[in-house]
Amino acid sequence: MAFEMIGERINGMFKDIGEAVAKFDPKPIQEWAIKQTEAGAHWLDVNVGPTATDRVKAMRWMVEVIQEVCDTPLCLDSTNYDAIEAGLEVCKKPALINSCPAERPKIERVFPMAKKYGAGIICLTMDKSGIPKSADQRIAFAMELVAAADEFGIPYDMIYIDPLILPCNVAQDHAPEVLETLRQVKTLSDPPPKTTLGLSNVSQNCANRPLINRTYAVMAITCGLDSAIIDVCDDDLVEAIATADMLLNRSIYCDSWVKVFRQR
Amino acid sequence: MAFEMIGERINGMFKDIGEAVAKFDPKPIQEWAIKQTEAGAHWLDVNVGPTATDRVKAMRWMVEVIQEVCDTPLCLDSTNYDAIEAGLEVCKKPALINSCPAERPKIERVFPMAKKYGAGIICLTMDKSGIPKSADQRIAFAMELVAAADEFGIPYDMIYIDPLILPCNVAQDHAPEVLETLRQVKTLSDPPPKTTLGLSNVSQNCANRPLINRTYAVMAITCGLDSAIIDVCDDDLVEAIATADMLLNRSIYCDSWVKVFRQR
Repeated sequence: MAFEMIGERINGMFKDIGEAVAKFDPKPIQEWAIKQTEAGAHWLDVNVGPTATDRVKAMRWMVEVIQEVCDTPLCLDSTNYDAIEAGLEVCKKPALINSCPAERPKIERVFPMAKKYGAGIICLTMDKSGIPKSADQRIAFAMELVAAADEFGIPYDMIYIDPLILPCNVAQDHAPEVLETLRQVKTLSDPPPKTTLGLSNVSQNCANRPLINRTYAVMAITCGLDSAIIDVCDDDLVEAIATADMLLNRSIYCDSWVKVFRQR
Repeated sequence: MAFEMIGERINGMFKDIGEAVAKFDPKPIQEWAIKQTEAGAHWLDVNVGPTATDRVKAMRWMVEVIQEVCDTPLCLDSTNYDAIEAGLEVCKKPALINSCPAERPKIERVFPMAKKYGAGIICLTMDKSGIPKSADQRIAFAMELVAAADEFGIPYDMIYIDPLILPCNVAQDHAPEVLETLRQVKTLSDPPPKTTLGLSNVSQNCANRPLINRTYAVMAITCGLDSAIIDVCDDDLVEAIATADMLLNRSIYCDSWVKVFRQR
């Protein structure tokens, strides 16, 4: 199973996308949809961001304008589940829901919705009290979420466990715990859940962010990371990911392995 | 425990060193000794190479000329154990012996010599029949070598198990087996043996060798690699290693973590 890259760029937190969402201007959104798809993104994250006055309406519109220019599957990213449902209603391909923590009311809202629309779910190893430090506590949350998949009839491999990496300059001790969580998640069910990370978070406010991002990506892939929300236009990062994939013997070596990885 | 870099460059296989050894010209050898030490090498590999007419004499001379310009510990690299012993006799600091396979006559020659001189031993997971493919078979050889440490009174952490990586363009399926071996080696004794790799071998005759080298280094470190014979003058490689070390929480994050890693 090859690594899945989720393009992070269509997010209203970025200035150009925020302005586009505020003005319902499709152009910057469509440009990034095409650019990330050409860079090899397997999914496009879609987050309406802080400028939307109506997140439900904004999400539906964003999904529609992206689908006008490409058919890359979408990862609908919002804490507003009505906005996510509005996006799912118009998605032409099975989507990912980003995200659901280990909190019962949210599980009861998200999991039936995922089943109805055939969507995967990015599941966060946290609850209302926050992100735990140890791998053991992260795994306890992952177990709750995998049990919920069972309960609501979602195939285990439609669950993407996100062990939540924090910036290494403020929570450095979390970095190895997240790696250990990735290793252990693969023992929770058969087939095992998938795994994902919001990669860029590891280097927030750090020096040499690209170096930290690509190094941690390779470490996490070695421990079982199946996908990540990343800057797919960071060539050095994509090269590192493609090379780790090849060195795990998941894609056959050829002199142009990075190019092949982007095009699959 | 911080990662140990073994500088690969003082090896008669390289043209400049080969010529220096043939002519007993100390200059290129001393220049590489200083250059690699300044780049952060914790050990310097010393291999007389194919041009030496008398390997015993050449090894002793190389050790002496290196020690005239730096006090970096040495890793004596030869299949001729008399040459290694000649080097050990003149080494001012405890050295590494590179290497010993899981073959009884060689164990009986190398281990007592290591004990006599207080040297560590790079132990290869192979015997006369060659390098096995599976992690299980590699681990079986590692167990023999750890048992030999017990028998000959060598502390377990003076044993550096080298699971022997092969070029990924011809033996790609070995790459994940070597990673699994690195994981399992750490369960063999208490304290566990150390681990090492001749890293550059993973990319022999491949395209974009530096990318493969630094990616595999990060993967192997994530699985328990403690040291490797590398090109310490490859800045991108050393940056990747320093960053993996930091992300495993073995060195404290600061904005200049790469510089700190080189200077420790």
